[in-house]
Amino acid sequence: MPTRAIACKPALALPPHALTRDDVAVYAERVLGSDHRHLGRMKKILGNAGIDRRWLVQTIEDTIVERGFGYRNDRFIEASKELGEQAAREAIVNAGLQAGDIDFVITTSCTGFMIPALCAHLIPALGMTRTTKRLPVTERGCAAGAFALGLAREHIAAGGRNVLIVAHEFCSLTYQRQDFSMQALVGALLFGDGVAACVVRADDGTAGPVTGFAMESSQSWLFEDSWGYMGFEVKDSGLHLVLDKGIPGAVERAIRPVMLGYLDSQGLRGSNVDFHVLHPGGKKVIDEVARTFDLQEGALASSYECLRDVGNLSSASVLVVLKNTFERRAPKDGQRGLLTAFGPGFSAEMVLGRWTGEPTGEP
Amino acid sequence: MPTRAIACKPALALPPHALTRDDVAVYAERVLGSDHRHLGRMKKILGNAGIDRRWLVQTIEDTIVERGFGYRNDRFIEASKELGEQAAREAIVNAGLQAGDIDFVITTSCTGFMIPALCAHLIPALGMTRTTKRLPVTERGCAAGAFALGLAREHIAAGGRNVLIVAHEFCSLTYQRQDFSMQALVGALLFGDGVAACVVRADDGTAGPVTGFAMESSQSWLFEDSWGYMGFEVKDSGLHLVLDKGIPGAVERAIRPVMLGYLDSQGLRGSNVDFHVLHPGGKKVIDEVARTFDLQEGALASSYECLRDVGNLSSASVLVVLKNTFERRAPKDGQRGLLTAFGPGFSAEMVLGRWTGEPTGEP
Repeated sequence: MPTRAIACKPALALPPHALTRDDVAVYAERVLGSDHRHLGRMKKILGNAGIDRRWLVQTIEDTIVERGFGYRNDRFIEASKELGEQAAREAIVNAGLQAGDIDFVITTSCTGFMIPALCAHLIPALGMTRTTKRLPVTERGCAAGAFALGLAREHIAAGGRNVLIVAHEFCSLTYQRQDFSMQALVGALLFGDGVAACVVRADDGTAGPVTGFAMESSQSWLFEDSWGYMGFEVKDSGLHLVLDKGIPGAVERAIRPVMLGYLDSQGLRGSNVDFHVLHPGGKKVIDEVARTFDLQEGALASSYECLRDVGNLSSASVLVVLKNTFERRAPKDGQRGLLTAFGPGFSAEMVLGRWTGEPTGEP
Repeated sequence: MPTRAIACKPALALPPHALTRDDVAVYAERVLGSDHRHLGRMKKILGNAGIDRRWLVQTIEDTIVERGFGYRNDRFIEASKELGEQAAREAIVNAGLQAGDIDFVITTSCTGFMIPALCAHLIPALGMTRTTKRLPVTERGCAAGAFALGLAREHIAAGGRNVLIVAHEFCSLTYQRQDFSMQALVGALLFGDGVAACVVRADDGTAGPVTGFAMESSQSWLFEDSWGYMGFEVKDSGLHLVLDKGIPGAVERAIRPVMLGYLDSQGLRGSNVDFHVLHPGGKKVIDEVARTFDLQEGALASSYECLRDVGNLSSASVLVVLKNTFERRAPKDGQRGLLTAFGPGFSAEMVLGRWTGEPTGEP
């Protein structure tokens, strides 16, 4: 049989500081002042965001202190190394492999900048071979995790071995104390910190059964006139989130043509997709996918649960959703899945595949 | 025949402001002061660097004004878009293709940060299709161009079509007026600005002869204990070059085992390589490769000429060297070549292949 590229069960490493919805309400009032014109709208968004808790690399007290770009980025590098190692080790174990079996490491992050990149740290730290190829993806934002999965499929189709993906995002380190724009405030409500890792195994059928998402194709889609929808602006004080208020509507309108268009190019319809692994950009996007595909209650629970438990982790989110899928509602062998993420560009990244192996969690 | 991945003739787009060796001597004295302890050593390095001229995105007067990270990065984005389009268009023409024939765009740069990335700008600007895959590589430094070529080979081996690589580096925008460390000063002598682009064609033999470097395999190598050799540190004032004074020696010692080790893994010896496409990290590295492979005078002229004419353009350099190879000393059909670049990690990226097609320049 041809070698398959199977995304195995991801691992998640979270920083130590929990930030609940109630904490956010308290600190929003403190930062903005109780009479700020955005406060009411902030609290409404907070109430509807479907996020119970996030995890931060610093305490909330330290997070809201104004800091320079250098300080933030130093914390980013420290946390990336520490939690990156932890998630990577666990993902390799989940895949039933050892570090020496990996021949390509892809790291993804848009919330800091490090040269050398995290992958150069992980190779000796985990004991991978010195010929391991490595690719840091910095500028693909929330879509980078899904893109990395598609690229891992290509690497294996080209004759490569197993791929380790490590998505390390510390969104709270881009929080700007002096930025009271609505987009910055919404970002502060939505995004969390964490590192997710996933091994994509090259499976030629000789090493026993492998359970996971066997990827068969991928497609990218760049939206029209969408440059300004989302991104980061570099200012002297660091990275400032760009989040156009028109995004939710624009993404919702595009979901039908883009996602169904990809399926159509593969000779498929929406009803041919048995399960979704959907990046939880926000609650509205998840709702719209449910409508587009006429999904039953609970079909996108892995995405809602990601938002609820850890918030939007940018490029790491789609791996958290895949982890939830493994642990809580694993599909049946042979069922078809569509993995989707949206991010700056503005772009969609989609991967089609089938579940392979035994159920690993509750049906 | 199996589909080959052929790197076609690169294009180079340079910014308008020339900076000669004499200019540098004058401005070094002005910036440092005529009695600075580093001045003599700077002038000696300048005299030996083999760099006649570089090209800057701003005048030298504007370059040496102290600016914040935000200002620098805005110039980076403007210049990347303008010169990126120009180089990309020319590279596509060089390959005998049209924008719609590209299905993967890889952009590489370590001298600024943009989300959305340059590739998201190029797709509509050049009229590529909205399903074009795109990958910005930010954190691989000088080795990113060579890495991108190896990845393009994998994309084509996995069934993909043609790949556009655009390396956009504006090193002068990382110049720090207040940083008088020796590493910063050496960086200011060595690096230049420019954008190089290259199309890697998927050639199944049905579209007529294609001339270029047909890539057959690639290998990465991460040096031991080399994290601190080279990179960028993010400070409040922007990117600060890290360039350990031990690098030249460490790289020179590693050239023999790393480059000959890769050849050995492919059943080859140094004498089996007919031509080199070598990233001109600095003059000493080129000299050492000449010694390691016992090369004749002139064998690495394409690398020395890159340094002489434009300086070290980081990830774009190896594409400039490939362009020089096409224009000035194209190999004969079937000759074996080794393309090599070094960069932060510290890493080597190597690609083996053969020249294919008719000579395109002087023998």
